[in-house]
Amino acid sequence: MAPVGGPGAKKGILERLDSGEVVVGDGSFLITLEKRGYVKAGLWTPEAIVDHPDAVRQLHMEFLRAGSNVMQTFTFSASEDNMGSKWEDVNAAACDLAREVAGKGDALVAGGISQTSVYRHHKDEARVKKLFQLQLEVFIRKNVDFLIAEYFEHAEEAVWAVEVLKESGKPVAVTMCIGPDGDMCGVKPGECAVKLVKAGAAIVGVNCRFGPSTSLKTMKLMKEGLQAAGLQAHLIVQSLGFHTPDCGKGGVVDLPEYPFGLEPRVATRWDIQKYAREAYNLGVRYIGGCCGFEPYHIRAIAEELAPERGFLPPASEKHGSWGSGLNMHTKPWIRARARREYWENLLPASGRPFCPSLSQPDA
Amino acid sequence: MAPVGGPGAKKGILERLDSGEVVVGDGSFLITLEKRGYVKAGLWTPEAIVDHPDAVRQLHMEFLRAGSNVMQTFTFSASEDNMGSKWEDVNAAACDLAREVAGKGDALVAGGISQTSVYRHHKDEARVKKLFQLQLEVFIRKNVDFLIAEYFEHAEEAVWAVEVLKESGKPVAVTMCIGPDGDMCGVKPGECAVKLVKAGAAIVGVNCRFGPSTSLKTMKLMKEGLQAAGLQAHLIVQSLGFHTPDCGKGGVVDLPEYPFGLEPRVATRWDIQKYAREAYNLGVRYIGGCCGFEPYHIRAIAEELAPERGFLPPASEKHGSWGSGLNMHTKPWIRARARREYWENLLPASGRPFCPSLSQPDA
Amino acid sequence: MAPVGGPGAKKGILERLDSGEVVVGDGSFLITLEKRGYVKAGLWTPEAIVDHPDAVRQLHMEFLRAGSNVMQTFTFSASEDNMGSKWEDVNAAACDLAREVAGKGDALVAGGISQTSVYRHHKDEARVKKLFQLQLEVFIRKNVDFLIAEYFEHAEEAVWAVEVLKESGKPVAVTMCIGPDGDMCGVKPGECAVKLVKAGAAIVGVNCRFGPSTSLKTMKLMKEGLQAAGLQAHLIVQSLGFHTPDCGKGGVVDLPEYPFGLEPRVATRWDIQKYAREAYNLGVRYIGGCCGFEPYHIRAIAEELAPERGFLPPASEKHGSWGSGLNMHTKPWIRARARREYWENLLPASGRPFCPSLSQPDA
Amino acid sequence: MAPVGGPGAKKGILERLDSGEVVVGDGSFLITLEKRGYVKAGLWTPEAIVDHPDAVRQLHMEFLRAGSNVMQTFTFSASEDNMGSKWEDVNAAACDLAREVAGKGDALVAGGISQTSVYRHHKDEARVKKLFQLQLEVFIRKNVDFLIAEYFEHAEEAVWAVEVLKESGKPVAVTMCIGPDGDMCGVKPGECAVKLVKAGAAIVGVNCRFGPSTSLKTMKLMKEGLQAAGLQAHLIVQSLGFHTPDCGKGGVVDLPEYPFGLEPRVATRWDIQKYAREAYNLGVRYIGGCCGFEPYHIRAIAEELAPERGFLPPASEKHGSWGSGLNMHTKPWIRARARREYWENLLPASGRPFCPSLSQPDA
Repeated sequence: MAPVGGPGAKKGILERLDSGEVVVGDGSFLITLEKRGYVKAGLWTPEAIVDHPDAVRQLHMEFLRAGSNVMQTFTFSASEDNMGSKWEDVNAAACDLAREVAGKGDALVAGGISQTSVYRHHKDEARVKKLFQLQLEVFIRKNVDFLIAEYFEHAEEAVWAVEVLKESGKPVAVTMCIGPDGDMCGVKPGECAVKLVKAGAAIVGVNCRFGPSTSLKTMKLMKEGLQAAGLQAHLIVQSLGFHTPDCGKGGVVDLPEYPFGLEPRVATRWDIQKYAREAYNLGVRYIGGCCGFEPYHIRAIAEELAPERGFLPPASEKHGSWGSGLNMHTKPWIRARARREYWENLLPASGRPFCPSLSQPDA
Repeated sequence: MAPVGGPGAKKGILERLDSGEVVVGDGSFLITLEKRGYVKAGLWTPEAIVDHPDAVRQLHMEFLRAGSNVMQTFTFSASEDNMGSKWEDVNAAACDLAREVAGKGDALVAGGISQTSVYRHHKDEARVKKLFQLQLEVFIRKNVDFLIAEYFEHAEEAVWAVEVLKESGKPVAVTMCIGPDGDMCGVKPGECAVKLVKAGAAIVGVNCRFGPSTSLKTMKLMKEGLQAAGLQAHLIVQSLGFHTPDCGKGGVVDLPEYPFGLEPRVATRWDIQKYAREAYNLGVRYIGGCCGFEPYHIRAIAEELAPERGFLPPASEKHGSWGSGLNMHTKPWIRARARREYWENLLPASGRPFCPSLSQPDA
Repeated sequence: MAPVGGPGAKKGILERLDSGEVVVGDGSFLITLEKRGYVKAGLWTPEAIVDHPDAVRQLHMEFLRAGSNVMQTFTFSASEDNMGSKWEDVNAAACDLAREVAGKGDALVAGGISQTSVYRHHKDEARVKKLFQLQLEVFIRKNVDFLIAEYFEHAEEAVWAVEVLKESGKPVAVTMCIGPDGDMCGVKPGECAVKLVKAGAAIVGVNCRFGPSTSLKTMKLMKEGLQAAGLQAHLIVQSLGFHTPDCGKGGVVDLPEYPFGLEPRVATRWDIQKYAREAYNLGVRYIGGCCGFEPYHIRAIAEELAPERGFLPPASEKHGSWGSGLNMHTKPWIRARARREYWENLLPASGRPFCPSLSQPDA
Repeated sequence: MAPVGGPGAKKGILERLDSGEVVVGDGSFLITLEKRGYVKAGLWTPEAIVDHPDAVRQLHMEFLRAGSNVMQTFTFSASEDNMGSKWEDVNAAACDLAREVAGKGDALVAGGISQTSVYRHHKDEARVKKLFQLQLEVFIRKNVDFLIAEYFEHAEEAVWAVEVLKESGKPVAVTMCIGPDGDMCGVKPGECAVKLVKAGAAIVGVNCRFGPSTSLKTMKLMKEGLQAAGLQAHLIVQSLGFHTPDCGKGGVVDLPEYPFGLEPRVATRWDIQKYAREAYNLGVRYIGGCCGFEPYHIRAIAEELAPERGFLPPASEKHGSWGSGLNMHTKPWIRARARREYWENLLPASGRPFCPSLSQPDA
């Protein structure tokens, strides 16, 4: 596959964002590879990077082809406290694989860390920072392009992560897994954003735990918080690929459907085009996805923002925008669906008349 | 991966079915590869087998790992009338790839043909049979293990397909894409089954177009038709991975959500375990899936029928049965979900309170 | 209130139907008076006719005003086996009250009997007929205009009722409380209709137990049965005012919501206009309602068929057809609802996102 | 009917509330009489009090029998600006009828006024107060027991109403038709309550426009506002009998179903028992209903709070608490519903699989 993106390819993450470019993130690894048979739910660890590298490579390739500008290392939960002695091999292999695929297109490599179980149990700053430090050393050795600290329930731990990562001199993005109600200790989204930027993050936002529209509500609050504080930062959003209007503060994990009955909540590609447009209009320029975001969801971001970016992603060779491929269908009523208005206004049925449309969260 | 299945692996399809074994089919190729970025909706042709063989190989591997005993060649619509001169390379490459992956486990290779566009326009028996004949020649040259004629709306064309395929001497399976109301000319399911068995099919059933429970209704009618006619045949079901209780005669393609808004209808793994059990109880022994069946759905078949088969598929190393992996979760209310009763009784919400639960088909 | 209907008022029931007139029935007594505080659910007996005559009179008046041409005596279950010694006073008082109100408009009085508990326990023809005979004697003494035998689960008992009633020489209507699957012994709707007409009923159809669209399916089968048998009879439908697409053979009583949670299923006036039109198009000319049919539902029948009947009912002075009264509203978006297209196409929300849209019947 | 309530019957409204008694309000007049054929939607004026007094009397009787302690005069919108010269007769007749029925039980007569159309167009304090003054003169002449100013969108007009009414020396209750977002000018519920109590209202709360659970959210805010201001007042809630979780600031009138498609939203009696209990627990002691509250809903309040009040209402002779009347049913699965746990946990289906569960408000 030839690199896409034209002049300016392989600019750094901040160079891109500073110049107003849209950066398309990647999507779901753990949940997607669980469905493909390579990750165990409950554990949610990335040993597949070592045990089944072809499966992980293929998913990276799909996201690249769908338009991702970032190959995030498959290192979620890959700290020593979760993976024991395997942690180092996993982190190193993840960097190599991300770099290999990134080299086939216009993508950067981001080293990723996430919240620790040590924090939850002990809140021991030194130990937590040490775990981050260890992963960071691998990322530096492998020379990733930038760093992402993601999936933090507590602003405090996220701040510690930023403090460790920024020492590398590489750009730091940070995302919390919170909703509009804020972090688990009641720190509001705007306040979280302020703390993180003050700690040294160049890019701030949310990932996971909440669906597209809820995540954008949180982003709006973060943006307002930064504005009120007179701070400047780039914004990033990587929402779930599931609709979760019924979530409480804890997000999707508290819904009764998590993690094995979320199917009816999966966003359509049209839902994601709407999400991409609304994120863009809100001023977010780093737009990707988290659990439930399949390659075609990432492609939907790239297609929605193709006018702004000036090009379509490679995978669009297999997708007529707004369903236009259907105009070759043999049945006239299906050809009639080959238009934007049809898909934008569709209210898709669940085919489940005995099921409700919302759930009561468990906690 | 080591071959699984113990003594008797690589027995032929009829040897397996005659001895009462369960044969687990594979799942969705076109719809799944569309979401991964390699197939164009509307066209629904398998050129990816040549253009992106790694993507197709990976999907084959996932189904094998999930427990499939059949690697069906990725040759849907790959007849000369649909693909022009590329058809032969596509068929040949598909055979090679299916064989390569089948060799890594206990799976057979099935050469697959499907309904032609010539039939729809001309009902010209000689031309239709010629198209089938051409594909069959490739399958014979590549020495596939057996043959599947699938996705026929008309019993007449399906009979022609069987008549061509049986000349090879290889076992022939045939599936129609009909529901309980029968084929497009009003031939009832029982009557279709009788015609196909009389034409020489050893295995008969349905694939695609209707969801799990509707497909099983059709199978029941086929079984009753065969019994009433005093005929013996093996039964095969490969339903959609989508719930379609609202479908009319034309099936899923007539639903307003087809093909880009079907997400809320995707079956859970638990829905598929129920489907596998009910299919088994009905006497169906070749159980697989069609559009929408992801690798984890195939694994659900293999897990549900593990007691009968005596083993779990490789991908179950990454799946605790009935959600048991969740008993390692940090939150007690999520650990409480690690049990069969929970998932069997879950009525999953759509997260879409503005959407209905059923649609009115378009035609 | 001045009598309405113009020339021909107070023609007999058969005179009306034979000349092609539409006869508008009345609606719900037991369920409606339960909600008003005068009937006990579970017992479902009409002692209010004696204990609270003003409440019953008011309801009769509302139906008359809504356009009913029939005041059916409030004598459901008022046979000796259900009400003991009170039965005779109840039947007599019900006749007097029905006559009093009928005299204020263009309505006839119909004496009503219904299935017995004796039949269910003993199937003793002589005892069952004796119960009917006793009620009939009151109706004859009070000189009702015609007779209705209603709410029969078994064709056999309904036939017995018709046999008793026809001896009076008064026209006999008979309605079963069955759905498209037929009576409790498997007698199909068409066959039921044939038996009842052969027994002497002049008017035949269904009441209660199933919602509008299901009841019309049953009527279609009755009509086809009569046609196939070369029989002539007038058709009557008096459906529930609740939607029950999920009912099994036993009807609404088997739904989990019966009788205290049926609110979300209540038909709108627009649903009933549709029902009236479809009933008319099917050839039904006696169109009314049963449980759940409030006065405004009866008015909806009268308004929908006003073009055929040539007049509106008195209560239409308080109803702009198709919502036209809203064009006086102060808010422009509510004025915009004052049109047929709006209400015909409305898909009303339940306001209950945690509830399903269909239930599994209990039995 | 014998008066109920035991010693202390016919105590004044404040005497009751000051002593901690629960006062059960009445329910829906306009919407209920619209369905009975006596009120025109869009106009929503109470001329039936003069034209069809029997129909109005019957409804008053039903509420009395259901347990209402208040007969509110049927004078909604009955000011001169809405009804022209008829206004005075309507107000006088409404007082007489309310008094007649109140005399048959333990109920007080409340003279009711509501927001004017003059305010909306001119905000002319003198003209608005003059309209209230005119109605008040009738109420004084007829010697009503207390006064209710209800259905105000603007705190300012509600304050004017209270200022006029308090001059009579009679106790004044006031209810706004607002939700948790406050009045049409953005005055928050707590602030509204404070203004109204400062203006002289002894009882303050909300009526109409929002369903049970939303209305209680507003009440909570009013209560907190009063507490924060160090003010004391009795609380009143008279919510809609419809579920409206999807309402915006304007309430039910903005929903697409208003006013002719609200059926699926009607609360069950169990929903209302829950509402009554939650209102009581919040400290509200005057608990009634507004549009959509039928007599059986009022009975549900009286039954839920029977332990606190010490008696059941007359209409409970026709209602087994928590469905206990069903234990006489012939079918065992219906007898199994005769228990509290069943009805408390029922999630009633809409029978409308093609409809959504929530709507988008129009404005």
